[in-house]
Amino acid sequence: MNPQVKIKPNDTRARIMDTAEALFRRLGFTKTAVADIAAELKMSPANVYRFFPSKNAIIEAICQRCLGELEDRAWAVGRSRGPAAERIERLVLEILAYHKENNLTEQRVNDIVLAAIELSWGAIRVHKEHMRMVFESILREGVESGEFERVDPRETSRLLMISLVHFCHPVLVAQYLQDQEDLEGDARATVRFLLRAITPRS
Amino acid sequence: MNPQVKIKPNDTRARIMDTAEALFRRLGFTKTAVADIAAELKMSPANVYRFFPSKNAIIEAICQRCLGELEDRAWAVGRSRGPAAERIERLVLEILAYHKENNLTEQRVNDIVLAAIELSWGAIRVHKEHMRMVFESILREGVESGEFERVDPRETSRLLMISLVHFCHPVLVAQYLQDQEDLEGDARATVRFLLRAITPRS
Repeated sequence: MNPQVKIKPNDTRARIMDTAEALFRRLGFTKTAVADIAAELKMSPANVYRFFPSKNAIIEAICQRCLGELEDRAWAVGRSRGPAAERIERLVLEILAYHKENNLTEQRVNDIVLAAIELSWGAIRVHKEHMRMVFESILREGVESGEFERVDPRETSRLLMISLVHFCHPVLVAQYLQDQEDLEGDARATVRFLLRAITPRS
Repeated sequence: MNPQVKIKPNDTRARIMDTAEALFRRLGFTKTAVADIAAELKMSPANVYRFFPSKNAIIEAICQRCLGELEDRAWAVGRSRGPAAERIERLVLEILAYHKENNLTEQRVNDIVLAAIELSWGAIRVHKEHMRMVFESILREGVESGEFERVDPRETSRLLMISLVHFCHPVLVAQYLQDQEDLEGDARATVRFLLRAITPRS
């Protein structure tokens, strides 16, 4: 066997996830069976099961990969330069853009998203905490520079996340788009409104 | 026939809705057929169809009834006395309490809610506009009394609704409860945070 063409287990894992994701989007999560995924990959279902014990395990892995990508992008904004208020606005627009790119925002709320939310609730809690920490780090810098009032960055990041859920939750983003509203414009207006609560009045 | 025991069409309509709602909650919306509803009521499916052309029409009617009840309760808070900030807080807690009472907040997001949202999107848009007007009327009074800064009550009510969706959307309320977080405490803290944005600093 030529070692150069030998497929690594990680590649197979990723291929199964990619194929499964495409099928879930096309047929829906409920209607896609592990056998369909195996057939599409021209492998046996038993081989798929060597990598994932169940269909749920596949959607969980896909969800984790998505959340990780989003966290990387969020930290990139968190570490960038510029006024804190501007970076918070950019962070929210980045999260929105991510949901759009991922086609999580089709006309009908996709059953993949609901399955992922239900199965990966633990992972999503951890993800939310990660995202909160990005908000907290920007807020802390804004407080230290005097751009914001001397609020508690941790509690304020929590309240900001609650208030911005409309732009950060895939189910709500999907419903918003269905109404063809100006999502980015509303996101900007909402961030500016919220930051008035912690900005010293001149 | 004794006119005193004659059942009015409106009573039958309401009975069909009540029975359907109970079955939707027990079996789920998808798994309940019109035949099940008819059997529970000891009537023929044809008789149910005299009142509602389809199962979807029943869920739409149930949804409209719910939204109407919620609007009545919201206007009651809107018309009450007291500082505007306090009334806005009470309004949000009232909406939360409503979702809890209606058991829309079971452990798993109920398929009734998703079906109702999808089928009654037009009615829900009208409802959201009603609710926005309640917020606007309280904000307007707060601006006039000097309790709030001279913001535009209409645009501010829109931004408040967006920021408070976590406490007003049945899917999010359900997920919140699943995490056993302090929903009322967070609602109060969020309203106070948001109103800082429009409250003159002393």
